Amino acid sequence: MSQEIVYRPIGIVHSPFTEQEGTPIQPSRAGHAIGTVEVYPEFVEGLADLDGFSHIILLCHLHASSGYRLKVVPFLDTRLRGLFATRAPKRPNPIGLSIVKLVAIQGGILSIEGLDLLDHTPVLDIKPFVGEFDHVVDARFGWLEAARRRTDIADDRFR
Amino acid sequence: MSQEIVYRPIGIVHSPFTEQEGTPIQPSRAGHAIGTVEVYPEFVEGLADLDGFSHIILLCHLHASSGYRLKVVPFLDTRLRGLFATRAPKRPNPIGLSIVKLVAIQGGILSIEGLDLLDHTPVLDIKPFVGEFDHVVDARFGWLEAARRRTDIADDRFR
Repeated sequence: MSQEIVYRPIGIVHSPFTEQEGTPIQPSRAGHAIGTVEVYPEFVEGLADLDGFSHIILLCHLHASSGYRLKVVPFLDTRLRGLFATRAPKRPNPIGLSIVKLVAIQGGILSIEGLDLLDHTPVLDIKPFVGEFDHVVDARFGWLEAARRRTDIADDRFR
Repeated sequence: MSQEIVYRPIGIVHSPFTEQEGTPIQPSRAGHAIGTVEVYPEFVEGLADLDGFSHIILLCHLHASSGYRLKVVPFLDTRLRGLFATRAPKRPNPIGLSIVKLVAIQGGILSIEGLDLLDHTPVLDIKPFVGEFDHVVDARFGWLEAARRRTDIADDRFR
């Protein structure tokens, strides 16, 4: 239980968003926000064939999120919810999962549409989005289905 | 670029699969393989409200995957592809993304259907699967659309 797992970034996000307040809460609510992922030179060879995919999955270290509480009021609700039933950024291991549209690749630079990440966010992994693996039919979405308050833009609650 | 990011597991997978060979390559191809995720006691409070979701996203440290190559022949193909255009388990940061069906929660034990993970895999994060965030319409899937050789079960190529 005290096992340490050590990762090193493969790249970094360049984004117009420099603080959480005002940043889209999810790619699906980010509209056409454009940003880039810079993949470090030693990993660029691994980007081959990625340009055939329209969408990619970014796993990032949410570097601005330190600490966490196990019950939080998520952006889309007004009640306390279990942290693991939310996508709140402050988590025991603050790994962000963003499914974004891949617009172009030039060398190690990926142009991304639908960015919900802060500038300078370290990128841990890039995976192709694959419908057969990642698309779920007939899913239920718990408290989110009933959430009354809807917002697209983060405030500072997880600062 | 040499920045170290340190995570600690929030739980562990209990699975019938003890080696990669014979393990389903993805939850969508795992059928009704049943397993459990044991969430460590100090994090159990964060599971509240998760039972309303039919599917959850497990982010795990693929502990059996050490080392990587930037070009690999994925399970579903016969040609070398860029690593980041595949879901191969050996990656610079071997984080597995599994979307699985949540069958039940009892205390800190999640019963899971569609498990594609090895026994004793450390769990880094649990997120609810949310259609609005995670479902992509009209996606293109690059080389995977044309892959000729299809298999559901891993062999030992990434041992």
